[in-house]
Amino acid sequence: MGSIVDELEAVLGPSQLDVSEVSLRRYAVDQAPVIDFQLPVAVVFPETVAEVQAVVKACADSGVAIVPRGAGTGVSGGAHATRNCIVLSLERMDRILALNPDDETAVVEPGVVNAALNEAAAEHGLMYAPDPASFRSSTIGGNVATNAGGLRCAKYGVTRDSVLALDVVLADGSLIHTGHQTFKGVAGYDLTGLFVGSEGTLGIVVGITVRLKYLPREVHTVAAFYPDFRTAAAGVLAVGKARVQPAIMELLDGGTLTQLDDIHGSDLSARGRSLLLVQTDGFGAAAEADVVRHVLREGGATVTTEASAEAERLVELRRHSRGTEVDDEYRVGEDVAVPRSRLVDYVAALEAVGAAQQVHLKVVAHAGDGNLHPTFWIDRQGPAIDAGAMDRLQAALDESITAALAMGGTITGEHGVGQYKLRWLGQEQPEQVRQLQRRIKDLFDPEGILNPGKAI
Amino acid sequence: MGSIVDELEAVLGPSQLDVSEVSLRRYAVDQAPVIDFQLPVAVVFPETVAEVQAVVKACADSGVAIVPRGAGTGVSGGAHATRNCIVLSLERMDRILALNPDDETAVVEPGVVNAALNEAAAEHGLMYAPDPASFRSSTIGGNVATNAGGLRCAKYGVTRDSVLALDVVLADGSLIHTGHQTFKGVAGYDLTGLFVGSEGTLGIVVGITVRLKYLPREVHTVAAFYPDFRTAAAGVLAVGKARVQPAIMELLDGGTLTQLDDIHGSDLSARGRSLLLVQTDGFGAAAEADVVRHVLREGGATVTTEASAEAERLVELRRHSRGTEVDDEYRVGEDVAVPRSRLVDYVAALEAVGAAQQVHLKVVAHAGDGNLHPTFWIDRQGPAIDAGAMDRLQAALDESITAALAMGGTITGEHGVGQYKLRWLGQEQPEQVRQLQRRIKDLFDPEGILNPGKAI
Ligand SMILES: Cc1cc2nc3c(=O)[nH]c(=O)nc-3n(C[C@H](O)[C@H](O)[C@H](O)COP(=O)(O)OP(=O)(O)OC[C@H]3O[C@@H](n4cnc5c(N)ncnc54)[C@H](O)[C@@H]3O)c2cc1C
Ligand SMILES: Cc1cc2nc3c(=O)[nH]c(=O)nc-3n(C[C@H](O)[C@H](O)[C@H](O)COP(=O)(O)OP(=O)(O)OC[C@H]3O[C@@H](n4cnc5c(N)ncnc54)[C@H](O)[C@@H]3O)c2cc1C
Repeated sequence: MGSIVDELEAVLGPSQLDVSEVSLRRYAVDQAPVIDFQLPVAVVFPETVAEVQAVVKACADSGVAIVPRGAGTGVSGGAHATRNCIVLSLERMDRILALNPDDETAVVEPGVVNAALNEAAAEHGLMYAPDPASFRSSTIGGNVATNAGGLRCAKYGVTRDSVLALDVVLADGSLIHTGHQTFKGVAGYDLTGLFVGSEGTLGIVVGITVRLKYLPREVHTVAAFYPDFRTAAAGVLAVGKARVQPAIMELLDGGTLTQLDDIHGSDLSARGRSLLLVQTDGFGAAAEADVVRHVLREGGATVTTEASAEAERLVELRRHSRGTEVDDEYRVGEDVAVPRSRLVDYVAALEAVGAAQQVHLKVVAHAGDGNLHPTFWIDRQGPAIDAGAMDRLQAALDESITAALAMGGTITGEHGVGQYKLRWLGQEQPEQVRQLQRRIKDLFDPEGILNPGKAI
Repeated sequence: MGSIVDELEAVLGPSQLDVSEVSLRRYAVDQAPVIDFQLPVAVVFPETVAEVQAVVKACADSGVAIVPRGAGTGVSGGAHATRNCIVLSLERMDRILALNPDDETAVVEPGVVNAALNEAAAEHGLMYAPDPASFRSSTIGGNVATNAGGLRCAKYGVTRDSVLALDVVLADGSLIHTGHQTFKGVAGYDLTGLFVGSEGTLGIVVGITVRLKYLPREVHTVAAFYPDFRTAAAGVLAVGKARVQPAIMELLDGGTLTQLDDIHGSDLSARGRSLLLVQTDGFGAAAEADVVRHVLREGGATVTTEASAEAERLVELRRHSRGTEVDDEYRVGEDVAVPRSRLVDYVAALEAVGAAQQVHLKVVAHAGDGNLHPTFWIDRQGPAIDAGAMDRLQAALDESITAALAMGGTITGEHGVGQYKLRWLGQEQPEQVRQLQRRIKDLFDPEGILNPGKAI
């Protein structure tokens, strides 16, 4: 038996196999902090389901690990290379195979970029609802593997809620089809749901049937500035108490506003120390926006009277609020979620942790879902980076997680456990529940070649 | 080791164990046709999680099968007793443990009746969205075990979409907690989703955390009468093409209208041979109803100008359109779903099947989801019940299923496979997919004591 590279050469075209140093480096990591850097043995770019099957079979025969990869925008290290692995990129499988406007469904290959599907759907008055802020680059396959959330998930649900059926290549190279082409279907166990969010550890997703929703014809956006973050968080609860369901409800703290100003030359931080962005959509959008404006003003917000277009621009800015920085050992973004009623408490806890550990903090939140993205960081140079700074950063991370769990929260609302969040998983899930998942993993992948050391 | 009844006596109070003939008969079957009548050895009524655990342990020790049961409104035979089993009724575990209006969640015991949860939620302007027509009697535990759909699922999703977390007693009597109290959470595999719809074959659901939605303050109902069923089905697609998302879109054929008239003394069948009921809700309800009325009129409907209240009464009638009949060997209700674009074709196919096999047919449909409930029946007496009638009924059932599958449909949109639909499962799911499910079943229930012979 030859090396895995020889085996792969036998089943792929020359342009589909890359072992160049530059490519191996490029495909070695996603956007998460790296804790155990490994170079893959090769990167492969299958273009058909049969090629994916052939690659998986070759790896199964050789006992080589496979790290599936979409666009590599993941922020938990799910697509980080591991020891003696190949990276299997789905990026060339990027065709929309069917768009059925009457069925309100689409069938896509995994490498289709989220925004591309949405553009195609928009021509028919439809949308693919789950819209991670990375929608311009992340793939539907990656979204499925992480059960991605997004801005308008407050109203329209997460990826799981839009996926009807999957084609999956299993660890032995065989292909199965799960789910149904219909909106509803309950025949047998929900294998589709099991694959969604499994981060490439149970199978390679090679085809996805999604349900599309109606593109709202009317959208209203309200921008509410607050003197501080906690009052803004209280605004989220006030909208809920008014029993208005916005499509989008995003919360940005002062640190985020300052950063956006730095990047875009805007004047957000001069207008408030926190910003709540609320978007209503559909036939009732105007009436809902009226209620939202009213309750937010009552809660102490300065609600912009500016045109909706201006507020919409702020939503666009928010979509880019991660900026261009990539997390690393000095800077880590998190993804906790808490029950909505605890939003204000949790924000207070975060601020206390940042202050106690003397680390920088900024927070954006999909607040409608109680899903917060705090980022803690320390300066890379200068007086602040003393011997203890790295420890204090880690302590802040740990404490912010513990606080979320203590409030009935979770360590990951949408980014997945990947590699980076494994260290906290035991705090959320007791051993018996983890054991069950390991046994499911064993059942699907007895040799452990699919994305080992991730997710569970 | 004593008999299982002795074992159960040791762990339950005297009022929690029933072996009387009348009770055994009453709890032997649900609402589905019976193909293999069996009396259970006993019926038990645990009142606490610990008691459920004790019962499961006793059965595990004795190798006795357990058939979990909510209200017994299932129509697939999922709660039918099997050989040497006990029936474990959850009906006494009927407390709403928490209702958190700020979190917009509730925590309930499995025996809570769907309508009871909705009443409690309504006091806070909230609702538990999935509303099977059986909502006045069916339990949340049963709804979870079948992944029940309902009328307003067109807009608000099925049971799966509202379940956040579960407490489940496993086949060895141990208790696990799955999921999260937050709206979003992606830590580990989606065990919650795996239990939802597993029809009691993977574990006993003893606690459920659900997400609540906002009770709409405004509801508009449109009743559209059509000269025939196919034109009415086309109306469903027309509403979709207008990109209006109703909360409810129910379709009733002539046979159903006649039956409702018989039961309620109404004059529906004089007004049309088919009725499409559309309900819009929320802040945009009035505007949406206007669009709906317009497109339905254009499609040939007689749209009632009567007050919304009158149309709402029709929705109430629809909820009871199964009447009081229970399916049996002469009368079988089905639950197929087809992609929406095939609704009209499928209705035509059903009519052709009914005519060819000379059996009666009536159809109601959660049409917004493409989910149809055709009922085929033959007369119990008189000239029609010749030797071949029973065969023709079965042939009609088989042909209606085959037609749905040929159109990309499923054998069950919401009722579950239970015992009755097992005969068609192989037509929908290939052996490899079924094998995977059997292996998951083995992993959770190696001795096969949990609802054997059901669902997969
Ligand atoms: C600026 C920015 C904003 C973001 N905003 C959001 C947000 O709002 N919501 C959110 O949920 N996430 C967000 N993310 C995280 C990330 O974009 C999502 O997790 C996304 O779903 C990853 O898609 P991808 O195609 O980049 O997948 P990758 O990063 O390549 O992979 C992600 C995981 O899925 C696996 N995988 C990928 N494709 C497949 C496949 N076909 N079959 C099996 N496994 C596969 C990988 O092995 C890995 O474990 C953001 C990231 C960035 C950088
Ligand atoms: C008039 C009428 C209208 C209906 N309308 C609809 C409808 O619109 N939509 C729809 O989806 N269904 C409908 N149904 C079917 C039925 O009501 C649903 O399947 C319902 O979810 C069953 O709930 P139940 O409490 O009666 O459960 P049961 O019938 O007692 O049990 C159903 C299944 O779940 C299992 N089970 C029950 N409780 C538990 C538990 N706690 N843990 C584990 N397993 C359990 C049982 O073993 C069985 O397999 C209707 C039925 C009738 C009679």
